[in-house]
Amino acid sequence: MPPVIAFIGRPDCGKTTLLEKLIPELNRRGLEVGTIKHHVHEFTFDREGKDTWRHKEAGARVVVLSSPTGLGLLRDNDHDPAVAELVDRYFYDVDLVLAEGYKHSALPKIEIYRTSAHSTPLPGRDRTWQALVGDRPTNDELPWFDLNDTAGLADFIVDRFLVRPEPVRATLLVDGQPIALNDFVEQLLARTLTGMTSALKGCEGGREITLTIHPDPDASH
Amino acid sequence: MPPVIAFIGRPDCGKTTLLEKLIPELNRRGLEVGTIKHHVHEFTFDREGKDTWRHKEAGARVVVLSSPTGLGLLRDNDHDPAVAELVDRYFYDVDLVLAEGYKHSALPKIEIYRTSAHSTPLPGRDRTWQALVGDRPTNDELPWFDLNDTAGLADFIVDRFLVRPEPVRATLLVDGQPIALNDFVEQLLARTLTGMTSALKGCEGGREITLTIHPDPDASH
Repeated sequence: MPPVIAFIGRPDCGKTTLLEKLIPELNRRGLEVGTIKHHVHEFTFDREGKDTWRHKEAGARVVVLSSPTGLGLLRDNDHDPAVAELVDRYFYDVDLVLAEGYKHSALPKIEIYRTSAHSTPLPGRDRTWQALVGDRPTNDELPWFDLNDTAGLADFIVDRFLVRPEPVRATLLVDGQPIALNDFVEQLLARTLTGMTSALKGCEGGREITLTIHPDPDASH
Repeated sequence: MPPVIAFIGRPDCGKTTLLEKLIPELNRRGLEVGTIKHHVHEFTFDREGKDTWRHKEAGARVVVLSSPTGLGLLRDNDHDPAVAELVDRYFYDVDLVLAEGYKHSALPKIEIYRTSAHSTPLPGRDRTWQALVGDRPTNDELPWFDLNDTAGLADFIVDRFLVRPEPVRATLLVDGQPIALNDFVEQLLARTLTGMTSALKGCEGGREITLTIHPDPDASH
């Protein structure tokens, strides 16, 4: 699972503007970046009248528009998904995820605090705060970056959050027979299972994970 | 993996209009429906100026907008994803997927053919064609449904494509110790691994699948 950093701050502190400058800096360092925006209200993403919009309006739960260059998806949620769920599911091929919001999560956080816009930083600071970004250095023990120093901030993020994952291998048996896997499929299976089980109680720090799928012996056919 | 049916036909034959009427019929039968629209050109899904649009423009590969009621996603593709890849990844909680397009795939197909709009049905018909839908019965061996008989078409789809999946169980060992799984996690793991391996050579029809993830013994640290 790629690391996730939450960018937080009071309304209109400039989160989106900072991310707009930070993303290209991270791209220049060879990193694929994903973003999550947390939204607490209803939203519209698609455009009225388009075919996908019509599918959704007619009652489809999930709608995907897929092309050789891009993909769009809309789905109904029946709960507010945790960041870990979103990252596991949708960010399988990025190096780093930047989130806007999720102030009350346990994610590592970078706060944007402009003294020209607000008189104090956010209350409730705890050990998840990693840095401050703003218009003027504050008398603060956290690392501080100027809003225009996105290169410095990108270096800080790379240093602090991007460690190479330990290499893993996957072995697949079907009815006891080993199945040949190419590198792509092997790594896809390995990372998926590692990611899916990483949050389960008892799986912390495990070195070997074995998942066996088998018919239900109690099922009546 | 839920069954997928491709709705095909000449341009402007009325695919989206049919799906708009068919989706609520399937919903009334208790089915959660997903849709895929295949698009061969560039597309825009988001609205210019919104925060997620700005993230994407700045170079993010994947952008997610998440709320308690819904989720929107935009991502770059570097290839045209196969339907099976899309269904495995994004349609994990629907009962049935209706696709617009994918005429050249091996998916089961329902063709829409309006004699008032076109003089002949699509060429290239093969055994993947399951039914015709139109404005007038054609002299054809395939099952035929009137464009307005979406209830009849929904019944046909349920009868032909919706079979209950065989129940499966999952067992998880970490460093040899069994991990307790609740039903949700057990089924999530079981269906994910079953789905991910279903297209691999040698996995066809297997009854037991075992995936083991372990450190790479050749890796130098």
